[in-house]
Amino acid sequence: MIKVGIYGASGYMGSEALRILLRHPGVSVEWATSRSDTPIEYYHKNFYGRDVRFVKPEEAAPCDAVFFALPTGLAAGLGKKFCEQGCKIIDFGADFRLNNKEEWERVYGRSHPDWAMSENAVYGLVELHRDEIRKSKIIANPGCFSSSSILALAPLVKEGLIDADKIIVDGLSGTVGAGDDLDPALHHPEMHNNILPYNVVDHRHSYEIEQELSLLAAKKVTVNFSACYIPISRGVMTINHAFPLKTVRRGDLLDLYKDFYAGEFFIKIIDLPKDKKAAWNYLPYPWIAAVSATNFCHIGLDVDEGRNRIVVYSALDSVVKGGALVGIQNLNLMFGIDEKTGLDFYGIHPY
Amino acid sequence: MIKVGIYGASGYMGSEALRILLRHPGVSVEWATSRSDTPIEYYHKNFYGRDVRFVKPEEAAPCDAVFFALPTGLAAGLGKKFCEQGCKIIDFGADFRLNNKEEWERVYGRSHPDWAMSENAVYGLVELHRDEIRKSKIIANPGCFSSSSILALAPLVKEGLIDADKIIVDGLSGTVGAGDDLDPALHHPEMHNNILPYNVVDHRHSYEIEQELSLLAAKKVTVNFSACYIPISRGVMTINHAFPLKTVRRGDLLDLYKDFYAGEFFIKIIDLPKDKKAAWNYLPYPWIAAVSATNFCHIGLDVDEGRNRIVVYSALDSVVKGGALVGIQNLNLMFGIDEKTGLDFYGIHPY
Amino acid sequence: MIKVGIYGASGYMGSEALRILLRHPGVSVEWATSRSDTPIEYYHKNFYGRDVRFVKPEEAAPCDAVFFALPTGLAAGLGKKFCEQGCKIIDFGADFRLNNKEEWERVYGRSHPDWAMSENAVYGLVELHRDEIRKSKIIANPGCFSSSSILALAPLVKEGLIDADKIIVDGLSGTVGAGDDLDPALHHPEMHNNILPYNVVDHRHSYEIEQELSLLAAKKVTVNFSACYIPISRGVMTINHAFPLKTVRRGDLLDLYKDFYAGEFFIKIIDLPKDKKAAWNYLPYPWIAAVSATNFCHIGLDVDEGRNRIVVYSALDSVVKGGALVGIQNLNLMFGIDEKTGLDFYGIHPY
Amino acid sequence: MIKVGIYGASGYMGSEALRILLRHPGVSVEWATSRSDTPIEYYHKNFYGRDVRFVKPEEAAPCDAVFFALPTGLAAGLGKKFCEQGCKIIDFGADFRLNNKEEWERVYGRSHPDWAMSENAVYGLVELHRDEIRKSKIIANPGCFSSSSILALAPLVKEGLIDADKIIVDGLSGTVGAGDDLDPALHHPEMHNNILPYNVVDHRHSYEIEQELSLLAAKKVTVNFSACYIPISRGVMTINHAFPLKTVRRGDLLDLYKDFYAGEFFIKIIDLPKDKKAAWNYLPYPWIAAVSATNFCHIGLDVDEGRNRIVVYSALDSVVKGGALVGIQNLNLMFGIDEKTGLDFYGIHPY
Repeated sequence: MIKVGIYGASGYMGSEALRILLRHPGVSVEWATSRSDTPIEYYHKNFYGRDVRFVKPEEAAPCDAVFFALPTGLAAGLGKKFCEQGCKIIDFGADFRLNNKEEWERVYGRSHPDWAMSENAVYGLVELHRDEIRKSKIIANPGCFSSSSILALAPLVKEGLIDADKIIVDGLSGTVGAGDDLDPALHHPEMHNNILPYNVVDHRHSYEIEQELSLLAAKKVTVNFSACYIPISRGVMTINHAFPLKTVRRGDLLDLYKDFYAGEFFIKIIDLPKDKKAAWNYLPYPWIAAVSATNFCHIGLDVDEGRNRIVVYSALDSVVKGGALVGIQNLNLMFGIDEKTGLDFYGIHPY
Repeated sequence: MIKVGIYGASGYMGSEALRILLRHPGVSVEWATSRSDTPIEYYHKNFYGRDVRFVKPEEAAPCDAVFFALPTGLAAGLGKKFCEQGCKIIDFGADFRLNNKEEWERVYGRSHPDWAMSENAVYGLVELHRDEIRKSKIIANPGCFSSSSILALAPLVKEGLIDADKIIVDGLSGTVGAGDDLDPALHHPEMHNNILPYNVVDHRHSYEIEQELSLLAAKKVTVNFSACYIPISRGVMTINHAFPLKTVRRGDLLDLYKDFYAGEFFIKIIDLPKDKKAAWNYLPYPWIAAVSATNFCHIGLDVDEGRNRIVVYSALDSVVKGGALVGIQNLNLMFGIDEKTGLDFYGIHPY
Repeated sequence: MIKVGIYGASGYMGSEALRILLRHPGVSVEWATSRSDTPIEYYHKNFYGRDVRFVKPEEAAPCDAVFFALPTGLAAGLGKKFCEQGCKIIDFGADFRLNNKEEWERVYGRSHPDWAMSENAVYGLVELHRDEIRKSKIIANPGCFSSSSILALAPLVKEGLIDADKIIVDGLSGTVGAGDDLDPALHHPEMHNNILPYNVVDHRHSYEIEQELSLLAAKKVTVNFSACYIPISRGVMTINHAFPLKTVRRGDLLDLYKDFYAGEFFIKIIDLPKDKKAAWNYLPYPWIAAVSATNFCHIGLDVDEGRNRIVVYSALDSVVKGGALVGIQNLNLMFGIDEKTGLDFYGIHPY
Repeated sequence: MIKVGIYGASGYMGSEALRILLRHPGVSVEWATSRSDTPIEYYHKNFYGRDVRFVKPEEAAPCDAVFFALPTGLAAGLGKKFCEQGCKIIDFGADFRLNNKEEWERVYGRSHPDWAMSENAVYGLVELHRDEIRKSKIIANPGCFSSSSILALAPLVKEGLIDADKIIVDGLSGTVGAGDDLDPALHHPEMHNNILPYNVVDHRHSYEIEQELSLLAAKKVTVNFSACYIPISRGVMTINHAFPLKTVRRGDLLDLYKDFYAGEFFIKIIDLPKDKKAAWNYLPYPWIAAVSATNFCHIGLDVDEGRNRIVVYSALDSVVKGGALVGIQNLNLMFGIDEKTGLDFYGIHPY
């Protein structure tokens, strides 16, 4: 059994990791921390009556792997000690996501706490970095929008099919993406019938997306990303627009995507036919509800042949495939077990 | 491996059974039927790309157990053949729920298709009928409101603490309870900001509730039940009001409930303290979100000592603990395996 | 023009009063207060760019009428000065709602700040106290649940048709009822798929309801009231259950209600036929969506003849007919103008 | 009084026109049609008990102005007769929206029923065509997305500030935009936690947007538009992305927009400061909730100076400023009365 600990389990991301790790057949959860004296069921009522308890951060003992669900900057600080004791580390935060120190410091507005650690970290998007992840000791878990958008655009930039300077991405997120900090705009009566744009330019996730796509393209890729919250709790849909460099057709692109992601269990390319006469008008594109609380990413697309534009939709669960469960997928890879272990359950319908 | 089949998997209840049975370690799903030629992913996008297919009803072959998720009256007709071939049967519908033929025929407005089968059926509420279920070949799975309300009221009527003629139950349901038949009132723009009362008197579930509570009380119990849809997709909350025959206190009742359900893994009695000064004002009572997509039922209560009233809240997932997963719990019992098998996962937070 | 001021316009109730009063043809809004330096559009984005400003409480000058949308206890304190200057007062809070001082002090857990004012106040439920309101100088605006439930039960208790000791009321409220104070349970991701019971026994509104119904019945009426929030923003639906003292029929009760509320423009009795075969299964009962943002109350009912129970549904907008607009209706009456002035607009469909 | 009739009042658009026209001080509603025998309150419960009735289409008599809320193609056919009798016509549909017959016939997949009428029609976006509207007898009311997007982009294309070939627009719509036709994807349990892309390329509204922007730019403008439904009932938000031809700054663009829309009562440019330290992180951009059920359009924007992109948010109510009420604004203009008449009410907060 892989012994794991979780730093920061009072938040949404840490508790999702805890929920799944407690049922993972190859894992033993040794501890999950909270600084508060309040029991876990006050934060996460789903654990009511289940004999799950927080420990104080001071009680966190070394184990085989540690997940960090902490504010930016803390994983690097706390993680060093664990690394030295031979722990593998998976950071749900942003400490190790960028390859360029100056960029990281500009984007996050602070000095990086331990760049040497960051240089040893692998960006934990399995579909792009599986082999490196297997050999890594430090994983930088991607941001939710980043996973969604990189997966949506990777085949296009890899093949050099699109104008790499003019990519536009709208990211729609459930409000779980705002975390558990209270804010007037996220108070239920304010948000129930609202759409809430935020970080509409220069979103921090832009830099991860550009970094990974640029690596794939072997040239600079620019991604113009804007985010908004919509009144669902979970899930992220990115709507990725690109201008093709030559004429492309929907069917050919779907084939490209199916090839690119052949063998990727958790990526599904939606290639249902477009048939305006069918009763099922809305099916050819991904639905967030279909992937909520799963580790799947559903990708679909279309081409406006007249106007020469590609649009790619990519849906995943912000705290699951876009967070905690990808972390566990990375854990599985790092410890040499089947990457699907503990993660292969179906979506819930209706969600 | 227990070989199972599912009749009627294009609907919400059958597909939930399918979803969980496909991951049940002791079960092999042999078939799941739909009369339509449309593939399963058009109905349930969560199965997209997962190699799950419908078969036509004619292809349904005998197996160890068959689940029926069909309109009222069909399980009795189709089930007889399977029974004769040695199959065990679990009906998600209402064919076998009532013990009295005249009442069944009056409530459902038709002649019963096979009363002999119904006499051999056991009402599949595990917490009340576990031993009979173990020995049964035919299970009448309870209605969602029925499970919620019976579980909420059972300790009170068993102990004879309340006026058995004056019970009032308001049942709030997510719209999944309406099934997949389209209706103008359930069109999203109509329902998004609405509350929709329906079956406000003489709801069919009333008869199941009264039957089971009367058995427990060993006298006639009358339950006044009213239903309404609220704009969530999943979950049922019943608000059960009763008038105590003598003075009772919240703490004593919570103890009674914990005793009554001692050892019941899937029932959790919420006994968090009431503390008006705490930041957590809303915690002492059950939350639907905490049990959504799980087999748990959360029960909480309070007493108005001045006015001499008890109110019991009971939250469960309408198509899970109130439907498909209780059916699987019954299957486990009928086949002598641990009743939690395949069903013991945590709730999702935030849902 | 009636000159009016509003105390406490940064909250939901005060801003609704402001919104409607600014378009009232017989009113001039002189001021609306907030203690904060933050402009109104930061609180209420609907006023963006409309030349509406807060004033500080110190700038509140005497005028013909003052609305108080303040925490309990402040209207009495501040109001006295205005009364002495000849202002009429409408309190959206609870300071003047109860006729019995000891009860008020027990329910609100404090000494009453000015009981002489309270004795001069009239409970501002127009349908029951129109003539007194016309002559009053101080109005105690009813609570939202109180308005809904009193209107639902008034005909039954007035006629002595029901057991006055065994009334049960479930109150479902949109989250606007929680006000603008942030709370973890009302954070959007927590609430979006939840139902949230609160104040489930001994709700303060119970006392208003009992007071008014007891006056109508000319004897003590006991009301067992429980509240929960559901994930809509606006609106209140009370589900009022009562046990009739003799056999009654739905049609006769509908006639009684239509007679009782004959001439009441803002009360509509829903008497659409119950027809199980119709496509419109959900129509015979009130819908919250139909009355949202209006001053209407829709009332519908049914009778379980077999079990001898009456259920009455009463839907209104919690901050409009259950709040700010009834306050304006009271203003109109106090100043001798048509009570519908400024309030007679249609509901919004779909809301 | 202007005598008006409404064709097609059983749908959402016609009923919104009816709701507002019934309270318009300069209008007398002569009739509102439905082919069905079902009374209006079965369709629109907000009219319950208000003495509003449908008439059959055959009873529609000539009057001063007629609104058409009918499927594409019918306004041209029915409207001709009314035109000949001197009626003015406002079409909520698409019959007269495009200036090019071949384009119309290709986009709508049919022969145009009466192109001569279309040539006499004015595109009813008040802010761009006020003077023509005043003189017109036939108004083509714009589509909801079209109004939102054209208003968002007009200042940029007019000034020639952006690359006119590379505009990307994501349109997010409440489900009222789907109309009242039932569809499985819009069934409440399916949609409550979903995002639903549709018409993701070559949306019909694209052609209106391109037409109007091309007129403003005096050159061909290409707009890449994609739509999706999100789980709110009302409102449209377009997210309009463009690449500036030279360096621009947020403040300068806000000034440009305020100049461009100076004097436009129903357009508000949101220019609240961006201040990451403020508690109000979400305020600098438009909120749909603030404009729901109003005739206002809120526009806000930002600039990514590093990546050289502009993003403009434009929020309005799909069936109000994006539909019925703009039609009434057009009516006011055509009849020479203040264009705000009957339309100047505040937004509802919280919606």
